[in-house]
Amino acid sequence: MRIRLYNARVLTMEKDRAVFSGEVWIEDGRIVHVAEDRLSSGRLSEIKWDMELDCRENLLMPGFKNAHTHSGMTFLRSYADDVPLQKWLNEKVFPMEAKLSGEDIYHLARLAVLEYLTSGITAIFDMYLKPDETAAACMDTGMRCVLTSGLNLFTSSVKQQEEEYLKWNSGNSLISYQLGFHSEYTCSRELLEGVAALARQYKAPVYTHLAETKKEVEGCRERYGMTPAVFLDSLGIFEYGGGGYHCVHMTEEDMNVFKKHGMYAVTNPASNAKLASGIAPVAEYVRRGIPVAIGTDGPASNNCLDMFREMFLVSGFSKIREEDASSLDAGEVLRMATVSGADAMGLKEADVLAVGKLADMILIDLHQPNMQPVHNIPKNLVYSGSKANVCMTMVNGRILYRNGEFFVGESPEEIYAKCGEIVKRIL
Amino acid sequence: MRIRLYNARVLTMEKDRAVFSGEVWIEDGRIVHVAEDRLSSGRLSEIKWDMELDCRENLLMPGFKNAHTHSGMTFLRSYADDVPLQKWLNEKVFPMEAKLSGEDIYHLARLAVLEYLTSGITAIFDMYLKPDETAAACMDTGMRCVLTSGLNLFTSSVKQQEEEYLKWNSGNSLISYQLGFHSEYTCSRELLEGVAALARQYKAPVYTHLAETKKEVEGCRERYGMTPAVFLDSLGIFEYGGGGYHCVHMTEEDMNVFKKHGMYAVTNPASNAKLASGIAPVAEYVRRGIPVAIGTDGPASNNCLDMFREMFLVSGFSKIREEDASSLDAGEVLRMATVSGADAMGLKEADVLAVGKLADMILIDLHQPNMQPVHNIPKNLVYSGSKANVCMTMVNGRILYRNGEFFVGESPEEIYAKCGEIVKRIL
Repeated sequence: MRIRLYNARVLTMEKDRAVFSGEVWIEDGRIVHVAEDRLSSGRLSEIKWDMELDCRENLLMPGFKNAHTHSGMTFLRSYADDVPLQKWLNEKVFPMEAKLSGEDIYHLARLAVLEYLTSGITAIFDMYLKPDETAAACMDTGMRCVLTSGLNLFTSSVKQQEEEYLKWNSGNSLISYQLGFHSEYTCSRELLEGVAALARQYKAPVYTHLAETKKEVEGCRERYGMTPAVFLDSLGIFEYGGGGYHCVHMTEEDMNVFKKHGMYAVTNPASNAKLASGIAPVAEYVRRGIPVAIGTDGPASNNCLDMFREMFLVSGFSKIREEDASSLDAGEVLRMATVSGADAMGLKEADVLAVGKLADMILIDLHQPNMQPVHNIPKNLVYSGSKANVCMTMVNGRILYRNGEFFVGESPEEIYAKCGEIVKRIL
Repeated sequence: MRIRLYNARVLTMEKDRAVFSGEVWIEDGRIVHVAEDRLSSGRLSEIKWDMELDCRENLLMPGFKNAHTHSGMTFLRSYADDVPLQKWLNEKVFPMEAKLSGEDIYHLARLAVLEYLTSGITAIFDMYLKPDETAAACMDTGMRCVLTSGLNLFTSSVKQQEEEYLKWNSGNSLISYQLGFHSEYTCSRELLEGVAALARQYKAPVYTHLAETKKEVEGCRERYGMTPAVFLDSLGIFEYGGGGYHCVHMTEEDMNVFKKHGMYAVTNPASNAKLASGIAPVAEYVRRGIPVAIGTDGPASNNCLDMFREMFLVSGFSKIREEDASSLDAGEVLRMATVSGADAMGLKEADVLAVGKLADMILIDLHQPNMQPVHNIPKNLVYSGSKANVCMTMVNGRILYRNGEFFVGESPEEIYAKCGEIVKRIL
């Protein structure tokens, strides 16, 4: 499959490379050519294209990387709002999740994939029950997915995680797997020691929910006399790096743990607002050189799977927290949502638009009023961009979404109907 | 012009009325029929329609009221970001605005109108240089606009404001006018006394920027020994009510002024975040019975003219400020963005969908993944809704935007081109 995307403004997201007019060629899921100039029509006519797409001077750029989500939770969107996190988890989420079958999770994750595509998200870092089902949903729709384990006292096991790790890191073109667990407060010390052993055995990074709420940090101090990051580090879990989701309530010592191991702080601002968890000190992470990625969190806590909203919030919240309107400018945030997200998820081949990289890219409509005038494209994207500007989402060289239409093997209405039946049965 | 919108889910926003399946009829810009059931085909066939629109079970509801904006500032979008408010005003905004002609403002305001329409905004409360130009832009595109004066020491005068007030409150079907001034800190005591005299003469409410930044409040204390709300009240400006834009840094006494005069707090959360002004105590206003409306502020400070983003932020910021995930639920916020906005702007006839009301309404696409499943429509709108869900925007019985197309008398590309020329000349 040979695709030519021409007449584009191209933002490769390579360091210090500005937007230019040009084109990108794709062959078998990889980028094979990125050019600032147009080729002479002579040479072009020699190439046989499966598809040539006129980008109409819209913006071609790497897709967004959603570095923390729980796709299968779409069934709880708008069901469990306006309640505190612990009550939300214990009364609204866990009892309903107990009723989910594997097939349910497959359908619910496909609904999430549709929404990711509308927001220009080309890869997700997904933690949920039954990772195989989410993997199937992503493979069937064409989405790229990095799975991680939501291991806790009630779900999965160290053994199961090891099997999943080996199964999904064996060359699948869309799916990979990172070690992980739900959180310190839902695991025993024994379980966590099991994860640490896996990390050592495979020299692998580990990811988990971390310092999301004050209550979580206080609970860990009571149990172990340490904050979650320090306690987990004392078990050797982060010997090969990894990262924390949320990272709202972090101490100096916690940040030192992150810095020491090159760990990623994955920020989830909409979820932290909606569940009243607080504002993460993202600018402080940046000052200390702790890399930051951005996630939507799941549709039960956000409730939207929209990287434009998250990008605005990362910058806006930081400006409020720091009382400084120059905190976290648009270029910095755009990098978090793309390159840094890919790095955090172990997707080094899907970070920028360059020859040899995976063809995970999006086309952003600049011919809409919210993108006019075109003074500064990163600022337009982060401060006024919206889902409505996404006119094409391509994953692994396949166009999965274009001009409001999905190309994921099934019609959205069929997926909605299946999810509707699940909701009716469970809630 | 007779229009029938059928097969809709209807949210009238009348108090305590739930969403129902039904239809809405429009004649000459007014709603003439709202029905929960379908009429027998016999009676229907007697009526001659100019247009019958199948809403496909999507949501018909009142349009959003953008209760604070500066439409003409589109030329500064993405030009003056990531700097503090006072520096932003004095170095980036005022010198550039000085170069604007009336015709410039006309074109720049039309660009803003296009964006309002994409976000389901059917009326704006606009403060800017040369209100006649913004009025012309709105009349030519079909937008509803409540003008107010940005009177300050350098712009406009009490006399000019009185002329505008009389001119634009004489029965124009789209334009009306409320008394106002830019802010305490850009006016002299004499100017403010002039506004107070106008308010008394016309028994009219007055609107202004108020308590947006700590610096503004401190400055007023230094000048007059009082906070802005208390000082302005001492001049009698709010004798007939009115409201404040932003209202971030309000004291107990300030809130008492608002309560006493039935004044509206117009919150602008995205702008307050982007300019690091802070988080307004919106839940406190609600507890005290101070009515709240929502505005985007202008495109130079936000930078987006999107009520979906504002609605999420009103709720999300309140949850963070109050450390309470149940603070300001979706229904409350949706009311601020519609009914309360209309009240604040003096648009009592454009608040809900009911017989006799103005036909200012929008159709929200529920057949998109971010709106599935349909558990609770207000929560879907506020927590996961987006511009991309707006499939129709009607003002005064005219469809101005539908399925991505504009019907405003000129093509978007022509408006973009005109704004592009202005930007090139000025910046």
